[in-house]
Formats: sequence, C-alpha cells, structure tokens
Amino acid sequence: MGADTMGDQPADRFADDPAFAVHEGGKLSVTPTRSIDSIADLALTYTPGVARVSSAIAAEPDLARRFTWAPRVVAVVSDGTAVLGLGDIGPVASLPVMEGKACLFKEFGGLDAVPIVLSSTDVDTIVETVAAMAPSFGGVNLEDISAPRCFEIEARLRERLDIPVMHDDQHGTAIVVLAALRNAAKVVGRELADLRVVVAGAGAAGVACTKILLEAGIGDIAVADSRGILHAGREDLTPVKRWIVENTNRSGFAGTMVAALEGADVYLGLSGGTVPESAIASMAPGCIVFSLANPTPEVDPEMAAKYAAVVATGRSDLANQINNVLAFPGIFRGAIDAGATAITEEMKLAAAGAIADVVGDEVRADYVVPSPLDRRVAEAVAAAVASCAREQGITR
Amino acid sequence: MGADTMGDQPADRFADDPAFAVHEGGKLSVTPTRSIDSIADLALTYTPGVARVSSAIAAEPDLARRFTWAPRVVAVVSDGTAVLGLGDIGPVASLPVMEGKACLFKEFGGLDAVPIVLSSTDVDTIVETVAAMAPSFGGVNLEDISAPRCFEIEARLRERLDIPVMHDDQHGTAIVVLAALRNAAKVVGRELADLRVVVAGAGAAGVACTKILLEAGIGDIAVADSRGILHAGREDLTPVKRWIVENTNRSGFAGTMVAALEGADVYLGLSGGTVPESAIASMAPGCIVFSLANPTPEVDPEMAAKYAAVVATGRSDLANQINNVLAFPGIFRGAIDAGATAITEEMKLAAAGAIADVVGDEVRADYVVPSPLDRRVAEAVAAAVASCAREQGITR
Repeated sequence: MGADTMGDQPADRFADDPAFAVHEGGKLSVTPTRSIDSIADLALTYTPGVARVSSAIAAEPDLARRFTWAPRVVAVVSDGTAVLGLGDIGPVASLPVMEGKACLFKEFGGLDAVPIVLSSTDVDTIVETVAAMAPSFGGVNLEDISAPRCFEIEARLRERLDIPVMHDDQHGTAIVVLAALRNAAKVVGRELADLRVVVAGAGAAGVACTKILLEAGIGDIAVADSRGILHAGREDLTPVKRWIVENTNRSGFAGTMVAALEGADVYLGLSGGTVPESAIASMAPGCIVFSLANPTPEVDPEMAAKYAAVVATGRSDLANQINNVLAFPGIFRGAIDAGATAITEEMKLAAAGAIADVVGDEVRADYVVPSPLDRRVAEAVAAAVASCAREQGITR
Repeated sequence: MGADTMGDQPADRFADDPAFAVHEGGKLSVTPTRSIDSIADLALTYTPGVARVSSAIAAEPDLARRFTWAPRVVAVVSDGTAVLGLGDIGPVASLPVMEGKACLFKEFGGLDAVPIVLSSTDVDTIVETVAAMAPSFGGVNLEDISAPRCFEIEARLRERLDIPVMHDDQHGTAIVVLAALRNAAKVVGRELADLRVVVAGAGAAGVACTKILLEAGIGDIAVADSRGILHAGREDLTPVKRWIVENTNRSGFAGTMVAALEGADVYLGLSGGTVPESAIASMAPGCIVFSLANPTPEVDPEMAAKYAAVVATGRSDLANQINNVLAFPGIFRGAIDAGATAITEEMKLAAAGAIADVVGDEVRADYVVPSPLDRRVAEAVAAAVASCAREQGITR
C-alpha cells in the first residue's frame, strides 16, 4: 500500500485549529455579476460590445464611475512589515490578514476589496507602485506598514492620488478610540477638554490617536515611546515625534510613562508591554483605561477594573472592544458614495461622532462602543462621512 | 416641478444599447467565501485567529498555497495602449475589457482574476509595478499593451517572476490560430510542414503567431508589416522584426504582402486594412484564409469563401471564430493547477493541440475550432498544459 492511501495518510497537523479550516483555499472569490450563457452574452460582456463602452469612457472619462467596477473597489495594500502583533512577516504571510480585511469591507461596507501585498519595503517603490495601479481602484487602504515609513507613504500617496487613501492602523484605530473616549467621558461626567491623557506608544496608532485627540479638543496629552515621555529635551526624535513634542506635553514632563500616569485621567495603551498595578492605582479617581495591545493588553483588564471607571481593550471576548472594523468600512463607503477625492481630518472626526452616537443614550461603563457586528455602525459612519465630504466640497 | 422629477428626466442616452446595461456598475464583485455572523466568526476570519495562519505561513511560506487565495488569482494587467481595435484609449477606458476578461477567467477557467490598469506606459515602471505586486497573485495575464513594448515587458517579467506570465494578445491568439490551422490542414488534406503561409501584421499577434507556427513545423512563412514583406534588405527593422527576418522568408521575397499571396496556401490577417479580391484569387487552390481583424475582417468572408477551402474570422456571428477565450482560461488554470513557475513554449503547443483535439473527428470546413462556449475546451487545455508542465519539471 502506498503512502497516499487513506489508512496511511498522516493526520492533518492543522485539523485541530478551526482558524485553519476557515482559511482553506483563501477567503475571497471574484465573481462576475453577469452570466455568460450564450454567444450574445459573450458579445455584450466582451467583444465586440465592450468596445462601445470603452469608447464611450475614452471620450468621457467620468462614465467610468457608472460603467466600471473600479470606483467601488478598495485596494488593501500592505508590505507585511507590521502585521498585527507579529511584526515583519513579509507580504505572503500577511495575505490572510488582508483577505480578512477585504471580507470585512464587503460584509460591513458593501465594498469590493482586493488584497495587494508588495514584495518591496522601499518607500519610493511602494508609492510608485500604488500610484501606477491607482486607476484600477476607488480607494486605497494602507495596512500593517511599519512606522515611520507608514507616515511618509500615506502622505505622499494622499498628495499624488485623487481617490481616498487611508492608513487604517493609524486612523481607523484613532477614530474608534476617539468615539470610545467621548462616550467614556460621558460615563464619568467629564468634558474631553478637561482630561489629562497619557498615550503609551508613538508608532502608527499612537501618533494618529494623539492627532485626533488634539483635534477633538483634548488639551493635555503626554505621549511615551519606549524611552519615556516625548519632550523637547530628547535628542532622538524623528520628524513625527518632533511634531508630537511641539503639540503635546504642556508641562514639559520629562519622566517615564509610569510616572506620567500619576493623577492622569486616561491611559491609552498602544505599545504592548506591561504596566504595573501601582501605576494604574496612581491615576486620578474615575480614570479611564484603554489598553489595546492584542492579544495581551498592557494592563490586565481585571486589575484595571479595580481602579478605572471605564476599561476598553482590543479583545473580542471582553466588553468595549476597540475594533477598527467599526470605522474603515463606513469611512471608505461614505467617501466613495460621495465621490470624495480624499479622506480629510473632518471626515475622520465625523466618523468618530457617528460611531459614538450609535451607542447614544444607552452609554454605560461597559458599553462605550458598539459591537463590531452592529450593522447600524457602517451605515451611520458612511452617511456622516459622505455628508461631511459634500459640505467640504471635495467631491467629484 | 424640479428637473429631478420623473417626467422631466432626460432620457438615458445609453438606454438603446444593451452593452451599456450589461456594464452598469461594472461586471465584477469580490465575495467573501466565509460568512461573518458572530464574534466567533470574526475571531477566526480576522483577529486573533488569522494571526495563527499568518504565523504558520511566515514559518513555512509554501502554506500560502493552501491557506490564501493568491495562488489562484490572475492579475489582468493593462496600460490601455492597444485596446481591441480602439488603440491607445488609456487605463480607465480599458477597464471594461479587463473586467470582461476577468469574467471569462472565472466562467471558463474557474480562476479569480483582478483587473489592474496602470497609469504609466513606461516599460520600466510597468515591470517594477507588476513585480512589486506579484506576491498578491498566482499568475499575470498581460493584456492590450502595444508592440513593441509588450515584448520587452513580457520578457522581463518572465525573467523576474516565478509565476506564470503571458501576454494574451500574443500567445492566446497564436495558440488558437495554430489549433485552427491544424484542423484546417486536415480539412484540405495537407501537412503543416508543406504549407506556405503569409502573415499580415508584425505586431503582438503577428509575431507570436509566426513563432508558434515555426515551432509547429511550418517551414515557409513570410511576414508583412505595413511596408511589405519583412526581408533582410529592410533597414527599418526593430529587434523583433530582425528576429522574424532571420527565421522566415526563405526565398528572400522583397515585395508587397499582396504579391506574396500569389500561390500561397494560407493567409493569416492580423493587421486590419483591406485585402483586394484579386490577391485572394491568386492564392493556391484549396487555400486557407484566417482574417482576424475585428469587427471588420481584412478579407470579406463571403468573398474569401469563393476561393478558400477554409475561412476563419474573429467574428462571433460566423463559423470558425478565432477567440482567445478558447486558450487563456485553460492555460492559466493548467499552469496554476500544476504549480508551474512559467508558461513555456511547450505548454502553449500542448494547449493548441488540446483545442484542436476537442474538434477531433468532427472537423470540417466550417468547424476547425470549437465554439467559444464549449465547456470541454478549458478543461482539456488545462489538463494538457498541467501535464506538460509536470513533464518539463517546472512545477513547485
């Protein structure tokens, strides 16, 4: 009997983990929306009929919005350098994440999305590649690209392209954090402007969260990287971190993140690592702890609950899950619906407001953000984002 | 009453042409193959479950063949410079054609295909762009890229990438032409080696047809461009045309295409324009006319039938339609099924043989190629191509 007969087959080493079963053969499919059952179908869908449609678009490019799929297709672009908690695992290994993202775009935003993973990590190459293929798409979702490269790549693509471009690890996270923080402030009866916030992490998410919190009116923020709070005396600052120093840390605090937590109202963890219980205990009464490292939050949620009035994490098995899926499907859907040429700061703030408003009057300590499965969210976000884009006059 | 009420709406100027109705909203959709109806689904399809799959692929890259969709996805890549008979209409106007191609990949080859249209026509940029995004795909179908750029782009990408790359306007056409010519030779009781062939057109399809006919053993071929038959005395030859001169035109004929047709056995039109009746009348008795310009063949088919034993065109409303859809879905399917790292000349010849064999003993003057809708074709081509790839030892 050969090794390929049933009895001798080795057991599938992936059989015990349902995540592998879900990924068998990949998670996406491209489907024609028209059937081709006759020569007549073929002559309309393809030659010669298609030539009339192509000619019409060549004469009047705006017709592509009506007669091609591209305007509603989002490229989910990654170089695989900062994948989830796994780090730089390369483009091929990042594909399951990008496919998952594409599933969520369809499921929640009704948008078609295509994973594009890149063999290069060079900033110029990534920018040129995405710019070259941009006519194929209606939007670009940058994903899991490491900092600080992600800042330059996003900035240059936003400059180059007239379609929405957004690095989700920055802005998706920031938008949901702001939505959750608005509702958390309500729970503890505070104004955003009065909160003192410590942001742990100055990577993609830390920088974007800091920016959106400043835009939302939070006055006092201190941001820490692995060497402590960013302040003007530091000599190791990248351009982005220099920008943070210029816009945060009013008091010029120069100590550790743990020291900064004393008397703080909000801890926002986007860094990984572990925060000691004494640090959380030193925060102000009625404090708010958002500890978003996945799968292991920086602050143990049970411990946090002993001191904090509101606790949120990235975990799906706990209340208050900060999940980007609350933001990106609706944001791209709204931007594309409106024919927006960009995703502006105002549109991001509008998205955060819409997410917070879905919770509305039901807000309580264990319900500051909607469930990731709440179908009302993407719809509300899309409407708010589209309306904001139209008000700003950045639509086609 | 406003202009947006029903009665005042302007009539849709595209309502009379069903081709536009078929293209409304585009012709493709990306669909998740797994539903996300619960937090548990989300935790398997996306984080945290997806991290285990990505980690496994990072450790063992071959697992991507099993757990991602990329290996069965074909990028249909164009810069829109040579679209059907329309010429250089640009990337956006070429999209309906690329979407149609993607429909046919799914319908006939069971493969997922994604249109990628490029904003650049620069050879280096196109090569670098496709190489950069290659980890996203299992194959690259180059489409409607003008000659001679198409030759260099294909050659360089074949060199760079270890997945199947094929410029369909060259090889798809060539493969179906060879299949049809095999069967046409049977109809007239001739051997391929004994035929004298005139190829009108030295663009993408003309060059590729010439190459595959030489590989199939046709000894005497003369190739014409718009200035007449290519011969060694011509001083305006590109590298590709020089190659043609070195491998064709045994007798060193230096006249016009029309003059070369005198006594020829086969006319293969890939050029557009019009051939006078006298030229067809001057061909050998029992001659074969393949006139593939679309929608208007170079030789009027009714006129051709007065002189030729077998007539084929690119038109869907006539017998013997030479349609690339007979080739590309099965070729990519076979190459991908076998895990082939390239599409070799031998695989192309195997594909032509498989297409011809579907007609088999039923061959007759008006049935030298199968119908484009014949579902047996792609399956037979895929099997022949996969088997050839395995014999050549170029599979993963």
